Amino acid sequence: MTSILNAAVAGDTRLFAIVGNPIAQARSPLVFNEIFQRMGLNAVLVPMQIPAASLATAIAGLKTIGNLDGIVVTVPHKISMTGLVDRLLPIAQKVGAINCMRRTESGEWIGEMYDGEGFTRGLSKQGHEPRGMSVFQAGAGGAGKALAHALASAGVKSLQLIDVDRAKQDALIAELAQAYPGLNVSAGSTEPEGVDMVVNATPCGMTGDDPLPFSIDRLDRRVLVADIIMKPERTQLLCHAEERGHRIHLGRHLLENQAEIVAEFFGLKPI
Amino acid sequence: MTSILNAAVAGDTRLFAIVGNPIAQARSPLVFNEIFQRMGLNAVLVPMQIPAASLATAIAGLKTIGNLDGIVVTVPHKISMTGLVDRLLPIAQKVGAINCMRRTESGEWIGEMYDGEGFTRGLSKQGHEPRGMSVFQAGAGGAGKALAHALASAGVKSLQLIDVDRAKQDALIAELAQAYPGLNVSAGSTEPEGVDMVVNATPCGMTGDDPLPFSIDRLDRRVLVADIIMKPERTQLLCHAEERGHRIHLGRHLLENQAEIVAEFFGLKPI
Repeated sequence: MTSILNAAVAGDTRLFAIVGNPIAQARSPLVFNEIFQRMGLNAVLVPMQIPAASLATAIAGLKTIGNLDGIVVTVPHKISMTGLVDRLLPIAQKVGAINCMRRTESGEWIGEMYDGEGFTRGLSKQGHEPRGMSVFQAGAGGAGKALAHALASAGVKSLQLIDVDRAKQDALIAELAQAYPGLNVSAGSTEPEGVDMVVNATPCGMTGDDPLPFSIDRLDRRVLVADIIMKPERTQLLCHAEERGHRIHLGRHLLENQAEIVAEFFGLKPI
Repeated sequence: MTSILNAAVAGDTRLFAIVGNPIAQARSPLVFNEIFQRMGLNAVLVPMQIPAASLATAIAGLKTIGNLDGIVVTVPHKISMTGLVDRLLPIAQKVGAINCMRRTESGEWIGEMYDGEGFTRGLSKQGHEPRGMSVFQAGAGGAGKALAHALASAGVKSLQLIDVDRAKQDALIAELAQAYPGLNVSAGSTEPEGVDMVVNATPCGMTGDDPLPFSIDRLDRRVLVADIIMKPERTQLLCHAEERGHRIHLGRHLLENQAEIVAEFFGLKPI
């Protein structure tokens, strides 16, 4: 991933934003701006750090900007942002969270959630076909829900879920059980075992002194350890997994695949 | 002015905006981004097209963005924006318009008007010292007021003013007469004569089929003809003036000088 772009932001540049809090660690601006550059577009995606308490005010303002065509949504706004678009597309309706929104030609703002599809597409591309896998996942928030739905859609055999918010965890388990009758879905423990892949879909690991989101000490060495955190690229969880001899799957695989899907959602085409 | 920047907009990039309507013609993004690049700053200034009717909503939203440090204000928002900052600095108080605003360390938003200083500094740098000049100016809006005050402060001998909004014109004349007792200030005609410089401070000339803001047919060929419109660089007025053999003064001189002053106001220093 190159970090230098030949980008000239001018008066007629189209604008995209990523909103989150914090935002300085977000890799999306570099990834999207590289895509824009490769496509030859006069467009830029800029980071916007917006606290949860002022999200509605911020989005009301951003929607008035005529040359702002789309918004990428990240932690902690993926769920609350569903109430700030005019219409949710099918995956977002199912998941109850969005990771992107755009203005349609009629001026309506629509939202969709591609985190899950970015993750499962990234797994497949790295040779870890999810179909038939037994999976443990930590995190039932916006990204966690999206991942669980995408994993279920991709045909995993079983899914064990945990979340520090027990109500969220149980609600997601019930939701998945209803939506995917063939899926074996249950509550997991913080010391998972007997699975093919463990995934961290919590924000735990974004700062260096975070505790591990779960223990991997009972896992067989052949288990794939995945994280969706982008920065650091190698979280404590992934470093620990590598030390123990596990194969690991990085957050940037999700991001890179999701960014391509979102760029299509934004209607961007090479010029 | 180069139009290519080596700018990598990343998650930790600081954000500045220029708000106006229209905005696609604005040259400020290129000028500021070149300054940022020269200073080695991880910052970008992006265009935001905001209709007058939604300015208050837009600004309320922009103020919530933690990494948005400052806003450049352009047509048609320079006057109405005075009501959307917490405090006006001295020139803005006098002029009743701002061209830039920034967040202070205490979180307060302050606004100031540097269009006039950008114009008079640009004149001096191009060898057209304003002190002692007889000046005709069209336009008593936000930029017009700023220019008139700066010209008066720079010691012009006389100032003839016109505006299609007669109330604005007369109010500015009265204001200047009171503020600068030594200045000979009066209403002009749309066919000025007997002056050293004529200035267009109206938006007339931004589109190709605009009529001329005033006639230059009665002017002596030695009269300097100035415009503050940035794009097109040579307005109909300036083209016509060049054909008649006048020296001309371009809008970009104002912009380039004003941008340096605003960058200082934003607290930006080379790193």
